[in-house]
Amino acid sequence: MGVVVQNIPRAPAEVIARLAAAGVATVHEAQGRTGCMHAQMRPVWRGPRLAGSAVTISAPPGDNWMLHVAIEQLRPGDFMVLAPTSPCDMGYFGDLLATSAMARGCAGLVIDGGVRDILELEEMGFPVWSTAISAQGTVKETLGSVNVPIVCAGQLVNAGDVIVADGDGVVVVATQRAAEVAQKAEARMASEEARRQRLAAGELGLDIYDMRPRLAAKGLKYV
Amino acid sequence: MGVVVQNIPRAPAEVIARLAAAGVATVHEAQGRTGCMHAQMRPVWRGPRLAGSAVTISAPPGDNWMLHVAIEQLRPGDFMVLAPTSPCDMGYFGDLLATSAMARGCAGLVIDGGVRDILELEEMGFPVWSTAISAQGTVKETLGSVNVPIVCAGQLVNAGDVIVADGDGVVVVATQRAAEVAQKAEARMASEEARRQRLAAGELGLDIYDMRPRLAAKGLKYV
Amino acid sequence: MGVVVQNIPRAPAEVIARLAAAGVATVHEAQGRTGCMHAQMRPVWRGPRLAGSAVTISAPPGDNWMLHVAIEQLRPGDFMVLAPTSPCDMGYFGDLLATSAMARGCAGLVIDGGVRDILELEEMGFPVWSTAISAQGTVKETLGSVNVPIVCAGQLVNAGDVIVADGDGVVVVATQRAAEVAQKAEARMASEEARRQRLAAGELGLDIYDMRPRLAAKGLKYV
Amino acid sequence: MGVVVQNIPRAPAEVIARLAAAGVATVHEAQGRTGCMHAQMRPVWRGPRLAGSAVTISAPPGDNWMLHVAIEQLRPGDFMVLAPTSPCDMGYFGDLLATSAMARGCAGLVIDGGVRDILELEEMGFPVWSTAISAQGTVKETLGSVNVPIVCAGQLVNAGDVIVADGDGVVVVATQRAAEVAQKAEARMASEEARRQRLAAGELGLDIYDMRPRLAAKGLKYV
Amino acid sequence: MGVVVQNIPRAPAEVIARLAAAGVATVHEAQGRTGCMHAQMRPVWRGPRLAGSAVTISAPPGDNWMLHVAIEQLRPGDFMVLAPTSPCDMGYFGDLLATSAMARGCAGLVIDGGVRDILELEEMGFPVWSTAISAQGTVKETLGSVNVPIVCAGQLVNAGDVIVADGDGVVVVATQRAAEVAQKAEARMASEEARRQRLAAGELGLDIYDMRPRLAAKGLKYV
Amino acid sequence: MGVVVQNIPRAPAEVIARLAAAGVATVHEAQGRTGCMHAQMRPVWRGPRLAGSAVTISAPPGDNWMLHVAIEQLRPGDFMVLAPTSPCDMGYFGDLLATSAMARGCAGLVIDGGVRDILELEEMGFPVWSTAISAQGTVKETLGSVNVPIVCAGQLVNAGDVIVADGDGVVVVATQRAAEVAQKAEARMASEEARRQRLAAGELGLDIYDMRPRLAAKGLKYV
Repeated sequence: MGVVVQNIPRAPAEVIARLAAAGVATVHEAQGRTGCMHAQMRPVWRGPRLAGSAVTISAPPGDNWMLHVAIEQLRPGDFMVLAPTSPCDMGYFGDLLATSAMARGCAGLVIDGGVRDILELEEMGFPVWSTAISAQGTVKETLGSVNVPIVCAGQLVNAGDVIVADGDGVVVVATQRAAEVAQKAEARMASEEARRQRLAAGELGLDIYDMRPRLAAKGLKYV
Repeated sequence: MGVVVQNIPRAPAEVIARLAAAGVATVHEAQGRTGCMHAQMRPVWRGPRLAGSAVTISAPPGDNWMLHVAIEQLRPGDFMVLAPTSPCDMGYFGDLLATSAMARGCAGLVIDGGVRDILELEEMGFPVWSTAISAQGTVKETLGSVNVPIVCAGQLVNAGDVIVADGDGVVVVATQRAAEVAQKAEARMASEEARRQRLAAGELGLDIYDMRPRLAAKGLKYV
Repeated sequence: MGVVVQNIPRAPAEVIARLAAAGVATVHEAQGRTGCMHAQMRPVWRGPRLAGSAVTISAPPGDNWMLHVAIEQLRPGDFMVLAPTSPCDMGYFGDLLATSAMARGCAGLVIDGGVRDILELEEMGFPVWSTAISAQGTVKETLGSVNVPIVCAGQLVNAGDVIVADGDGVVVVATQRAAEVAQKAEARMASEEARRQRLAAGELGLDIYDMRPRLAAKGLKYV
Repeated sequence: MGVVVQNIPRAPAEVIARLAAAGVATVHEAQGRTGCMHAQMRPVWRGPRLAGSAVTISAPPGDNWMLHVAIEQLRPGDFMVLAPTSPCDMGYFGDLLATSAMARGCAGLVIDGGVRDILELEEMGFPVWSTAISAQGTVKETLGSVNVPIVCAGQLVNAGDVIVADGDGVVVVATQRAAEVAQKAEARMASEEARRQRLAAGELGLDIYDMRPRLAAKGLKYV
Repeated sequence: MGVVVQNIPRAPAEVIARLAAAGVATVHEAQGRTGCMHAQMRPVWRGPRLAGSAVTISAPPGDNWMLHVAIEQLRPGDFMVLAPTSPCDMGYFGDLLATSAMARGCAGLVIDGGVRDILELEEMGFPVWSTAISAQGTVKETLGSVNVPIVCAGQLVNAGDVIVADGDGVVVVATQRAAEVAQKAEARMASEEARRQRLAAGELGLDIYDMRPRLAAKGLKYV
Repeated sequence: MGVVVQNIPRAPAEVIARLAAAGVATVHEAQGRTGCMHAQMRPVWRGPRLAGSAVTISAPPGDNWMLHVAIEQLRPGDFMVLAPTSPCDMGYFGDLLATSAMARGCAGLVIDGGVRDILELEEMGFPVWSTAISAQGTVKETLGSVNVPIVCAGQLVNAGDVIVADGDGVVVVATQRAAEVAQKAEARMASEEARRQRLAAGELGLDIYDMRPRLAAKGLKYV
């Protein structure tokens, strides 16, 4: 506790943009069905598909002091990713902090906790994914850390990891794997497009994927 | 496990349409306050009031293989209703499966589990009621069954039962009771309309339903 | 159980209006970070910022009889606030009761339980904050009480307390503190406006609030 | 609602005894990994392995009237199985009802809700599996039904089904399948005993079950 | 926040002892089925039936400083009752604080949060009812209050209220009603004893309470 | 997925023994209030304080195949630590696997999921900490991994990390910090012992820790 790491690795902007275009579900598949935050992590308002580098925040329950510290560490396009050290659904973040974060070019916030002022956040166009919405305010009394490894909504996040977020939730991609995952995601999108057209024409997945022999071998019976 | 029932009874299309028009809350009242799935079953996007016959799917946790098998069993206007054999909030269903289901005329999906690609589902206009949203993908390794009785979100669903779904959730009507319930629902709607006008004019339920004597008999005191 | 209190104190309409203008998060801060209902209390549809005096309802689980009794006690601008005597997510309230409540000038409903007919509630423009949505109907068999103290979503509510509700949830203000809290809320809004402009210009909270010396004293290390 | 079915089928006592001896986990496996109530159904005190025929109770939330009606329908060795029509954790059952049930030879209670007087229940030796413990009392105002099909803790229970319960929870066996399941359970126990001895001697499951080729075929890599 | 009320009313020791003897379920019934904390409030170890006067503690999430302040306010036989200002399951209390509380004659702890060192608490014989068990430690940075009204596990608790606790959970009795409730509880116990003997002899509640006519009037059908 | 790491670092046995002696709450404090799994991780039966090196298992939901693979990797005194790749409360582990694990010298199991045969596990004396108990069986169809980093009950666990477990739950200590943490834990225990004696004698924490001036400075008021 009480550490701010100032220099963190980031994936290239071009790779981040390609991951954003692929979206959460595809990126998650492309890296072997790993990295998804759990299903309680939801967008506060329905906004764009986004990706950015993680500035991580480990915060005490009910204490949002470290958000002010983290904002200074932001570079344009970064996401803030906050995990409390113990489960807490209080409103850590509202319109004033969002104003400050936007002024520093912050792309959005992912928080395993609560936020407030959500009408204002939507009006400002500041994207937030959270596990709670609560007007309950916090204090500024106890240190946490910035840019240390955290566990957020069930996933390990290292500072600089790529965060991809959309209506399906949030997925984390390790910095060093980002280019490889972007490539695999694009390959997947291409092959999905072909299958989509066949499915739209009424062909069955049972036939496109040649599932019938394997289903029969497992013992599926039609009665 | 490992059974697909191919011929299932269905209620007449005209009865299903009348149940759709009545909506979930009214149908549930009309069949004696039974059949409602529990409150975690929610629409993924705010769409139309709908009804259709259930093609039921019993699936292992984290395995969506049986959805492909079920799609072949669909007739136009059917609902797919999926219950995992153990609680699971993973994303069983996304835009590719929706493309395939729509091509077969599927009315919608009710799932006691998760779905993904929800932005695409809304754009496609494919209606889904689920207990979770999650990008976390599934595998295709273990058999389940199609058109066997299942328990979905706390309610027994037999293949062919009528599923009515709207913003209030989902209610199940047994095939053989569908016509009777539709009739009772329409009677209820007619009598509600009369009461609505009196209530809108400022008359009190206490007087319209003649509740005062019974409240007094039970001992209600005004102080 | 079985008591209806008929005369309750209410805060002045002008004070209530000022609290509504401040909104939930600001009012909660202005009264010392107290009074917030828990984070499961959410608006059923995204409506206006509102405030009103509480007509409280203590109801048995699955029994909505007392809502009819409470409606007679409403004055224009009042909120109904219902807490079951034991946790219950059934649909206590729907479009008929909303019609009746609106005819009496009711501002809205706050309920630690479920509501139904939510599409109709939104069309009618009747604002509801609830902890559940469920079509499951209730009975009218057992007495509760009206305008007695209740605990709703974790907060004590006395009849006549001011309820402030918006997209962030619901906060309760004791009648006798309402004027003082309104004043503090307005002072807070004024001072926030000044800070917002500095933050929007890119100044850091670390500097505006002079946090650096205190962070250093607590031992924060930059590495 | 409001129906009591008086004559229900029961499995033979000898079959029920064999299912009790096998226990919940083995019976569940023997019927194809089906029939388990969900994991919130737990014993109130650590008692014996038991089995009995189900007298089913569908009860309104917070209303335990039907328990009195059900007790009259009990035969010695029967289980009472109660499901509320909507989720409710109130204390439906305590020492007085247990005294009455024991006097009629009741084997135990399975309830998807709460019980109370648990110290007394343990002293009396009356076995209970429940999803909650709560002193909160109930009323006797609204009818339910006895010996109709219910869904309890996620499983369909028909009157007369065999209930098997122990420290692992509760499993339901359909009356007509009880003899077959008992036989399969005993076969399973016999084969497990042989494997247990090999495992206790340090042999690996990887070898006993010949898993290595299939793991290699799926692509497992040792690094 | 930040207030310690030093002089609080307490019920007479003799009344408290009579409430302890009656136990949670009976006291709850005797005061009209009110006052029960919710079902997540459970004893950490199975100890005695107890009652005592409440020293209330309002504490920030994850901050146990006020427990030290509260211990000074204890009189022999008092309970400490702690509610966090926002939901928090961290371990507020362990063996050192228990040592201190026991030295001051404290009867036990009721906490809507977590405790730790539970093996030691049981060895010491210090009774605790909590909603969580967690080794996660807390800080001492932010003020709360002692002996102000709090909402704990869904119930309002005023300083000095009588807390009754046993295996069924916890019930709160207002100081001024304590003598009346004790008397009603004893009357109830006497009448229950008579009924218990009739039930044990095999008589049915249906007959003892003369329920058959009312069930028939409500429409119960035997088939 | 599909990787087994065969050589993992382990902390010295002597250090592990010292961490076991300190227990979960003390070790957690000694490493700066970090490393605690969340409060749903509970012992299945009340057994000894234990510590051991982690053999980690990443398993698909409802699939326990990797447990067989992991058992081959165990050295005497190791813990198995299993996290499903998505939340799942099925019974992954029972008496046969426990027999096998004990034969290989396994110290115990920590699982963010369910176990079964709990009566047998207690009789065998095999210690288990889990987040669920369920008889619901699993399959062996899909690969997972052994000795890769996992997130279990909210904490990152690397293969070889020291697991400390007792009645308060489970804490994780990184291998490279184990000796330092053991030392700090022992220092903490020594200083606690001195304070315990003063507290037992009736001295107040307010005085022992000299809290009064700081409380006054923060503004605490006695009324």
